[in-house]
Formats: sequence, C-alpha cells, structure tokens
Amino acid sequence: MNALGKHLLLELKDCNKEVLNDLSYLKDTLLAAASECGATVLGESFHQFNPQGVSGVVVIAESHLFIHTWPEYGYAAADIFTCGNSVQSGKAAELIIERLAPNNHSIIEIQRGILNTQ
Amino acid sequence: MNALGKHLLLELKDCNKEVLNDLSYLKDTLLAAASECGATVLGESFHQFNPQGVSGVVVIAESHLFIHTWPEYGYAAADIFTCGNSVQSGKAAELIIERLAPNNHSIIEIQRGILNTQ
Repeated sequence: MNALGKHLLLELKDCNKEVLNDLSYLKDTLLAAASECGATVLGESFHQFNPQGVSGVVVIAESHLFIHTWPEYGYAAADIFTCGNSVQSGKAAELIIERLAPNNHSIIEIQRGILNTQ
Repeated sequence: MNALGKHLLLELKDCNKEVLNDLSYLKDTLLAAASECGATVLGESFHQFNPQGVSGVVVIAESHLFIHTWPEYGYAAADIFTCGNSVQSGKAAELIIERLAPNNHSIIEIQRGILNTQ
C-alpha cells in the first residue's frame, strides 16, 4: 500500500519573534522552500495580523505549504503537503527550519490517502 | 498546557468521483464550512488539474482550510486548522463530510503549538 500524499507537520518553537512577524521574510522562505524541493508554484496568499502574526500559504502543483506564526510565543506551525515522488519535501522542511532557526523543533510525518486499492 | 492551534485532518474515501473533480462545488463547500464554523474568510485559491483533481485553500483569520482531491481514487484529503476558541472546527468537518459523502472517512485531531510557557 502506498500513500497518495506525504504531510510534514513542523512545530517550530523559540524562534526569533521579529522574524515571525515579518511577512516578506516568511513569504520568501516558503517560496524558497517550494523551489528547493522542486515544486511548481501556482499561487500564494499571505496575511499580516494586528497586532502581530502572519498566516501564509503557497499552493503548489504537488499540493501546498503553509505557515502560521505566533510571535508573542516565538512559535510557528508550518506544513508541507506533497504528492508524487518528484518533490523532496524533506529539503523544504530543512530550509524552513534553517531560516526560522528555532531553538526547539519537531517534525511529524503523516501519510495521507493510504488506499487498499493501490 | 493549552495548544495554540487545533488541526483536523480528514481522510475522505470512496467519494463520488464527479464531485471530486468539480472545482466550483468544492470551493462552495470549503467557503460554506468556513462560514458554518464562524470563521472570517480572508482569501482563497483553487486550482483544477488536468486530467483531473482539484486543490484549494481558504485562508481564514483563524488559520485555514484546504482540500486536495484524487477523483481517480475517489479520495480527498481535507484539513481544518484553527486557532482560538471562537471557531467550531468540528462543525466545518461535519459539513465537508456531509457534502462529499464519503463511504469511508476518518478524522485525526492534532494539537499544534503546545507550549510549556502557557
């Protein structure tokens, strides 16, 4: 049985708070991560919250990347959802972790779409 | 310890294949789900794939909803990521399941951003 999709859930703790409130930096990071893993970008949507925090998603042909940040807690949640074998989502995860430089992080990998018929 | 975010991962199997390839229907469904749970919609991005399949995301003030479909397998992955207590993401999940009518489904709930400092 193979899975149709691979879903990486990144928990990024003790990040720099200014970085987590910098929409431009976070957008660059997600687009760079998409490029790094060989994905094809179809669109993106980013939003700055008041007084702080950023949400952003990059839609790729192979699914999506998103990030939600809580600067007040130094915390960000980032997900990388990919399908197919052409995309190396681990590389995207490495780049996001490198650029957000959390003191503490974890990655959960979940297989999506495990079908008996495959 | 409280979590900053609640993440519902829906595995929707044995859905109607035509529904899974109907971008308009799926967009209506996700927007209705956002409305149903009391979320504030900030933006959306949907894409139709060739020969089949749809990816879509609705960005909400409280995080996001997305769906990726594989009509050829009758399968869809949908996620509802919310923060705060004002949004009832379970209602959004119920609506998506009702409208996609999978013969087989499961929901995984993951707490995101569990911080020792809270």
